[in-house]
Amino acid sequence: MMVMSLKNRVKKIFKKRHPPVDKIIIKNGSETNIDPNFFYSTGIDKGLFEECAAVLYPNGDIDLIISKLEESIATDYNHNIIIFKNKKELDSILKKQLKDTKDIGLNFDGLSHRDFEFITGSLKHNNIKDVSEDLMKARMIKDSEEISQIKKACHIADKVAGKIPDFVSKGMHEYELAAEIDYYIQRYGADKPAFLTISSFGQNTSKPHYSHGDNKIEYGDIILCDFGACYRRYNSDITRAFVFGKASEKQKKIHETVFNAQKVGFEKIKPKIQARKVHEVVNDLINNTGFKDLFIHSTGHSLGLEVHDGGVGFNSGCDVLLSENMVLTVEPGIYKPNFGGIRIEDDILIKNEGIEILTKSDRSLIEI
Amino acid sequence: MMVMSLKNRVKKIFKKRHPPVDKIIIKNGSETNIDPNFFYSTGIDKGLFEECAAVLYPNGDIDLIISKLEESIATDYNHNIIIFKNKKELDSILKKQLKDTKDIGLNFDGLSHRDFEFITGSLKHNNIKDVSEDLMKARMIKDSEEISQIKKACHIADKVAGKIPDFVSKGMHEYELAAEIDYYIQRYGADKPAFLTISSFGQNTSKPHYSHGDNKIEYGDIILCDFGACYRRYNSDITRAFVFGKASEKQKKIHETVFNAQKVGFEKIKPKIQARKVHEVVNDLINNTGFKDLFIHSTGHSLGLEVHDGGVGFNSGCDVLLSENMVLTVEPGIYKPNFGGIRIEDDILIKNEGIEILTKSDRSLIEI
Repeated sequence: MMVMSLKNRVKKIFKKRHPPVDKIIIKNGSETNIDPNFFYSTGIDKGLFEECAAVLYPNGDIDLIISKLEESIATDYNHNIIIFKNKKELDSILKKQLKDTKDIGLNFDGLSHRDFEFITGSLKHNNIKDVSEDLMKARMIKDSEEISQIKKACHIADKVAGKIPDFVSKGMHEYELAAEIDYYIQRYGADKPAFLTISSFGQNTSKPHYSHGDNKIEYGDIILCDFGACYRRYNSDITRAFVFGKASEKQKKIHETVFNAQKVGFEKIKPKIQARKVHEVVNDLINNTGFKDLFIHSTGHSLGLEVHDGGVGFNSGCDVLLSENMVLTVEPGIYKPNFGGIRIEDDILIKNEGIEILTKSDRSLIEI
Repeated sequence: MMVMSLKNRVKKIFKKRHPPVDKIIIKNGSETNIDPNFFYSTGIDKGLFEECAAVLYPNGDIDLIISKLEESIATDYNHNIIIFKNKKELDSILKKQLKDTKDIGLNFDGLSHRDFEFITGSLKHNNIKDVSEDLMKARMIKDSEEISQIKKACHIADKVAGKIPDFVSKGMHEYELAAEIDYYIQRYGADKPAFLTISSFGQNTSKPHYSHGDNKIEYGDIILCDFGACYRRYNSDITRAFVFGKASEKQKKIHETVFNAQKVGFEKIKPKIQARKVHEVVNDLINNTGFKDLFIHSTGHSLGLEVHDGGVGFNSGCDVLLSENMVLTVEPGIYKPNFGGIRIEDDILIKNEGIEILTKSDRSLIEI
């Protein structure tokens, strides 16, 4: 990544911040508590960086405070690198780097309470401010490097979606289909699946957060596949539905309703309207059919370094005004208990006058 | 999972705690901030459970406070379920459940500072205690259900390790080998890879945290594969080294040294000795060879719901006494910059008199 555009990214974070802070510290915890903002601000697209920290400066400079283990990766990114051996050294490095700094920003959302205590303990004379909203607002609007990575992630997901009919065979279990999907996600160049792939059959498709299990495919089952590619830390997120055999009239009707709901969603999206308005038109369309109250989640979420990026989403509580270069999913669904569910999900980029749909694979109800 | 043994697990957490607390709250954040203790205490082995909470009682009872989206999964686990629609509802549910509770335990390690503020805001009259150490200590000693899951995860990793020579072919890229490994991890029944699979070739093998990239295999390259299976949330973690073609004398010497280092490590491990002693014998062995100072990480870590489970590890700073039913990795390595690296990693269970090696696949330097 270009050093200059990365500096602009860090400057953008500070610009969002009022009243200003003098420095921002991003600190990772252990593997289950890594702050995506560490990678957003540093541009590092490899490695794990457990317990590592970045100190951001208003002029765009970055100090990377990292363990020896990550040094060979970190040297590729042109930041100032400081190595720590243990928590005590990290403590004294932070103290030194932040001496005489007045206002320090921390990400209250991404920082464990333990690390908050640790950092505020090291910096007892400093003034701590929560910059989580500023980070989120910076990340809500994607820059050109981010859009380019997301497009690559979408392209990979599309290619995999197109192959799903080839993967499915008689007697297949859900987990076997998930394995095929994940395999091609990686073979097509992604670093990993964006999240635990959902590949559910039959009645399991009515549970939106069910992933996959030992369930065997039966003739007439809906097959619901919700997956994404993670490409250099940026994610795509797509859902396609299929039927094993011939689709019933009811399955077709559900799919058609979801398809139409997504279409009115697409048409509603443009800069300067409130995000919740998109959810409202989608939800209203479904509730005015025989499938009233069977759309049980929000219409979409922001997408980027996290599959559920923060700040804006197509849900009833979100008054945020949409703007250019936001990337979100549009994913209406209908879930009929003891029958099955269908969801169609695509990723969109908001443009000046409307949207670009980034996932382009066939959205029809394909019979396999 | 048996309801009784789960109750015992929750009781165990409270027993570790002195002075006692009356209730413990475990609270997940968003997808990058999920607390494994939520799954440890509830036994739930599916679903995502973003923003959900569990209230634990000293008698082993659990209240699950969850979003509607997770209800269909959660009902399988026999806990008391309370559904919240939004943060405001969660707030009032917590207030109600914890009214008149004197001492409340929170996991300062797994809780974001934001959620800490949220919970302490809801419970302003309560006495908050940090129970992170108690949770960690409970999880350090695995119960029979946990050991059974870890063994399944190890068995899957072993089967995949045995197949690696079949995967490798001329002209292959690192990411393609990673895709094969991950595919078979899932085909053999795991839910997903335990972590981002490392499959590095040639000089890249000298970077312990490098995962995989576009690098193409060359004759004579070391191939280093470090991967694991995640089975019902429990992990294995294994590393095997290969050579593409005929191994050089130097490669053989490095492998032999690492193999011997691991062996003295295995022999040292038994209940009641300090964890660091194991690292010391392993490190000393390597430093008394021509590969002095080229072993640049610790000898092993605790393994369970997290790949790097907390509390005990074979490193120079860990004075913890080993005890029965701990599960750890033993993974010495030698990393020669601009040449390559070899690591051998296995998972062990500490028994009454010594260890059981849970990963049983061939540890020799196989030429492919």
